[in-house]
Amino acid sequence: MVFVLKPGVSQHNIDHFTQKIESWGFKTFLSTGTEHTVICLIGNTAKIDVDSVVQMNDIVEYGKRVTEPYKAVNRTVHPEDTVVNAGGVPIVNGMFQVIAGPCSVESEEQIIEVARSVKASGATMLRGGAFKPRTSPYAFMGLGEEGLQLLLAAKRETGLPVVTEVMNQTQLPLFDDIDVIQVGARNMQNFDLLREVGRYNKPVLLKRGLANTLEELLMSAEYIMSGGNSQVILCERGIRTFETSTRNTLDLSAVPLLKQKTHLPVIVDPSHAAGIQTLVAPLARAAVAVGADGLMIETHNDPAQALSDGAQSLNLVQFKELMKDLKRRIDFEGKHIGTA
Amino acid sequence: MVFVLKPGVSQHNIDHFTQKIESWGFKTFLSTGTEHTVICLIGNTAKIDVDSVVQMNDIVEYGKRVTEPYKAVNRTVHPEDTVVNAGGVPIVNGMFQVIAGPCSVESEEQIIEVARSVKASGATMLRGGAFKPRTSPYAFMGLGEEGLQLLLAAKRETGLPVVTEVMNQTQLPLFDDIDVIQVGARNMQNFDLLREVGRYNKPVLLKRGLANTLEELLMSAEYIMSGGNSQVILCERGIRTFETSTRNTLDLSAVPLLKQKTHLPVIVDPSHAAGIQTLVAPLARAAVAVGADGLMIETHNDPAQALSDGAQSLNLVQFKELMKDLKRRIDFEGKHIGTA
Amino acid sequence: MVFVLKPGVSQHNIDHFTQKIESWGFKTFLSTGTEHTVICLIGNTAKIDVDSVVQMNDIVEYGKRVTEPYKAVNRTVHPEDTVVNAGGVPIVNGMFQVIAGPCSVESEEQIIEVARSVKASGATMLRGGAFKPRTSPYAFMGLGEEGLQLLLAAKRETGLPVVTEVMNQTQLPLFDDIDVIQVGARNMQNFDLLREVGRYNKPVLLKRGLANTLEELLMSAEYIMSGGNSQVILCERGIRTFETSTRNTLDLSAVPLLKQKTHLPVIVDPSHAAGIQTLVAPLARAAVAVGADGLMIETHNDPAQALSDGAQSLNLVQFKELMKDLKRRIDFEGKHIGTA
Amino acid sequence: MVFVLKPGVSQHNIDHFTQKIESWGFKTFLSTGTEHTVICLIGNTAKIDVDSVVQMNDIVEYGKRVTEPYKAVNRTVHPEDTVVNAGGVPIVNGMFQVIAGPCSVESEEQIIEVARSVKASGATMLRGGAFKPRTSPYAFMGLGEEGLQLLLAAKRETGLPVVTEVMNQTQLPLFDDIDVIQVGARNMQNFDLLREVGRYNKPVLLKRGLANTLEELLMSAEYIMSGGNSQVILCERGIRTFETSTRNTLDLSAVPLLKQKTHLPVIVDPSHAAGIQTLVAPLARAAVAVGADGLMIETHNDPAQALSDGAQSLNLVQFKELMKDLKRRIDFEGKHIGTA
Repeated sequence: MVFVLKPGVSQHNIDHFTQKIESWGFKTFLSTGTEHTVICLIGNTAKIDVDSVVQMNDIVEYGKRVTEPYKAVNRTVHPEDTVVNAGGVPIVNGMFQVIAGPCSVESEEQIIEVARSVKASGATMLRGGAFKPRTSPYAFMGLGEEGLQLLLAAKRETGLPVVTEVMNQTQLPLFDDIDVIQVGARNMQNFDLLREVGRYNKPVLLKRGLANTLEELLMSAEYIMSGGNSQVILCERGIRTFETSTRNTLDLSAVPLLKQKTHLPVIVDPSHAAGIQTLVAPLARAAVAVGADGLMIETHNDPAQALSDGAQSLNLVQFKELMKDLKRRIDFEGKHIGTA
Repeated sequence: MVFVLKPGVSQHNIDHFTQKIESWGFKTFLSTGTEHTVICLIGNTAKIDVDSVVQMNDIVEYGKRVTEPYKAVNRTVHPEDTVVNAGGVPIVNGMFQVIAGPCSVESEEQIIEVARSVKASGATMLRGGAFKPRTSPYAFMGLGEEGLQLLLAAKRETGLPVVTEVMNQTQLPLFDDIDVIQVGARNMQNFDLLREVGRYNKPVLLKRGLANTLEELLMSAEYIMSGGNSQVILCERGIRTFETSTRNTLDLSAVPLLKQKTHLPVIVDPSHAAGIQTLVAPLARAAVAVGADGLMIETHNDPAQALSDGAQSLNLVQFKELMKDLKRRIDFEGKHIGTA
Repeated sequence: MVFVLKPGVSQHNIDHFTQKIESWGFKTFLSTGTEHTVICLIGNTAKIDVDSVVQMNDIVEYGKRVTEPYKAVNRTVHPEDTVVNAGGVPIVNGMFQVIAGPCSVESEEQIIEVARSVKASGATMLRGGAFKPRTSPYAFMGLGEEGLQLLLAAKRETGLPVVTEVMNQTQLPLFDDIDVIQVGARNMQNFDLLREVGRYNKPVLLKRGLANTLEELLMSAEYIMSGGNSQVILCERGIRTFETSTRNTLDLSAVPLLKQKTHLPVIVDPSHAAGIQTLVAPLARAAVAVGADGLMIETHNDPAQALSDGAQSLNLVQFKELMKDLKRRIDFEGKHIGTA
Repeated sequence: MVFVLKPGVSQHNIDHFTQKIESWGFKTFLSTGTEHTVICLIGNTAKIDVDSVVQMNDIVEYGKRVTEPYKAVNRTVHPEDTVVNAGGVPIVNGMFQVIAGPCSVESEEQIIEVARSVKASGATMLRGGAFKPRTSPYAFMGLGEEGLQLLLAAKRETGLPVVTEVMNQTQLPLFDDIDVIQVGARNMQNFDLLREVGRYNKPVLLKRGLANTLEELLMSAEYIMSGGNSQVILCERGIRTFETSTRNTLDLSAVPLLKQKTHLPVIVDPSHAAGIQTLVAPLARAAVAVGADGLMIETHNDPAQALSDGAQSLNLVQFKELMKDLKRRIDFEGKHIGTA
């Protein structure tokens, strides 16, 4: 961390400031220029709020953190790509996995029909919501624990590993047989939940919040990793902007940028980002090309009947056609789908 | 809810669509124009996702919800202003309360010193964080349960009702003696927490999320009210925009707009919005003028030593001066501070 | 345009309102439901501001435009893809053109070296700024008219058609030999300039403004087309969001969405969007996959020496490598580069 | 400007980098710490793009501009408040002016009726659009030159100085008798227009762009002042955010922040920000309290008939009532309206 002092600060004030910093347990290094004096701090500065120091100390012109505030997720600390083992399916650079399934688990018939179909089309994991975050308290909240059981039935039927969303930490004991626990966009900064899934020994799919920066996403992953769980998958799913013609704005720049900064795998959810079914296929193709490690695609056996999020779901035939196309593209990128 | 069909749709398709809607339990009313056919739905449409219906049904040009999706918080349903009783202090239109205190409770001496001072200056409630949401897992997380005890000690000492933040529902039993439970910005759409505080018989201070619309804020309040708890205070605390010279952008338009739409009281937190201490006083003055029912102002006995959020805290002398000014303004507006 | 009236409006008020609308020159069609009365307007509603009508007429609950406000650019009016002839190079669905060159034309040697190199690598058009929009009045503003001459020299040398930015309408006479006139992001709603280039018989490259919706972009294209110039290329170049790790957020969803709504070709500028050189290649690959009709890529002979926008420029070797990769991808998509 | 180098950079590379910087005409000052080497640049760094230098030079960890890039508008350079003389009406800290009038000048009767009425209510300046920026090429564009003449007629009739918007620099000769030239939000970064009005000897009202930062607003003012025209009024009029319940989000924090950073007066336009008539009065009150130097309020003799922006206009009676209230508030702040 570096602080640049204002021009003409007295030696007395500089001494007072450096003593204060040292009282916090840091070493300081001072360099005196003709214009500005610069003070470098040495030590673990993660707990210091730079802005506070600048504004609370009149003699400081500005301050800046030189090193990133995240450690465990940082690629400079851990250069090799992390392999997340999602119920036997590796999510990692070089592979490309496709997670498909409905927004909500609705019935045993539905989830098994979808699971069989997406597996036949080439999906390598199954998704389905049992606990649903809904903006309105009057909307359908999912089947809850029964939904988890139906998902597991579909897993037994097809062998596909399953991913589903947890809404709060008291639900975690119910997730013992689930392969990947999803932390949704609205919970990306539910720090107590992050800490709790960090104590689990199970992969976590962490979705970027609607208004969260990439640094905040990495800090949330850091919460999980600092708890001892290094099996974290990051997911770009669109951010909130002024544009209203799509539900959210898919930020595909996030993929290569995250992969520079962290060793964790990064996947893309084009369905929630766009909110429009006709955009899912082109955005999925773009996600493959931009370097993502996988996709999460909403797929429903009868989107027109779905009361929630039908607008963004592919039907089973559309998904099959998309997979045919995506497999050619995964191959073109020299990547592999599945366990091979 | 109204759906406008595309021009030239066949009668067969119209019949098919209206039958589908009626199968969901709604009455339909059809009006046939020269250009467009319009279908109105009658019934409780809160559970329908308009966009899904439009996109999943080729014959529909667009759809729109005519009535707001929130009921209990809606002023049209409940025209009189709600009075929230915050430990004896009324938060309501016509009154103006000032909540002051530090970002974090740090020690008994600190919180009691701050509480005595802000009370002497005219604050009518005390705030202080015991459980702190922090972006970094390495930052100070608050004193936790001990912090709650210190807050209650300060309450006994000064008589000021206290407000403090809950981070997850398992903590709620610890809040029995707290006067107002705060749901923070990052938890505004933690729906399970909202539902849980809705079962409590205790005022809730609900902060607007950094990227949440006013309608979403009202829907989150609806979660709490639909659980049976009608003691909800809304708090505007700044939204995330492209502007970087302030931490967030305080949206003061939210105050009169919310007060048109709902009967719940609305307060403003200029400290977190601006993130800059010199902006707190002008924004507090603007909040009084724009029609807010109160303010929440971060105040610290020694901001320069605070490791978290010192940059936005007033010191005790600055707060005293601000209160002198605010009292004149509250008086000018014909409002009252305290219990009178 | 449809207006839904509030429940319980008197017949007298309904009559008064419909008479007012008819006095504006529209036919109205009324449908009376049990809950709401709906009024449809027939006629050219482009000049009506829906929000104004709703707010100025107490009896109206809401109003909505049923048809898009743009005509000439609308694909429903003109289903076939427009071919823009950029100095002999066709920009259109099915082809894929790559425009390369430096942010600013700096000297004859520089622009000719860059032009020769990018042509050898496979670029099909040359870009280079002569008039530069700069945030600071003290920054380098480009070589102006001399820059245009140097660009034309590079065109004579290499045969590459050239595209360069116009800053205001008085400069247009200087652009006679330029192949494509660029209207920059900051001028996307400079309506007088749009109208003026609409009177020219020369292709216009219209960049999306930093905070403009896709509908606004289409309306600006409509300005140009309504002046008689149908040779318009749309360009997505990133929008302004809260995210600060990239300069702007490239909105690739815009590409398929625009191509649904309009017949005009759509290209992507990943350089200005990202502002980071290492993101240009992955975003370029994504742009090919998402269905764009071309790319605009900043390329410089010596980025490290460039005082403006060096951070986002590829050097000539990087561009060559990228083109090798892009050609395989264009081929994969079944598209063609150049004039074939 | 300060650059912090990466740890472990060789002396050879440091020398190479400092030589490059010195070749650009700067002096450098080097300070070598145990962790990082820091290089300070001395000289006019306004023309350097910090990000480019950081990204183009592998050895640089980060760079930061220490001094603001604007000079003439900077309060540190010019601490006293600038007085803008708007046709005899002083716009400056300590005074508070109210500019009122219709969105568009529609007829002589209309503008004279409005001018007389707003003058009687206490407005000190008249606004009215003659050249109107409109998103759609089919919308009413204003009466143009005739509109300017009608405004001047209203000025002769009432003595109120007039402000109206210029759309491009070729129109400037028509503005000779206009008191204040408005540069609209969409032209805030029309740099050629800024430069041109900077050569005029006439006050300029510069509106903040919908997606422009405060630093960019100050840089645009710097364009005007660097041309020799120091009579600039800044105007906050709302920014574009994700919130859709108001047209734009009025950023009142901008007022105290701008007044810290610059000596120029700052006014607020609540009408365009909110886009909703019922929000204009509360936001106007907030603007007075937050420390603005004036207001610009859309006022129309018959808002219900206005085809453009009627939704946000006060009628003449509403304006009269608002002025009565505002005068008490201006008085409360110890400020003066008019020429006294």
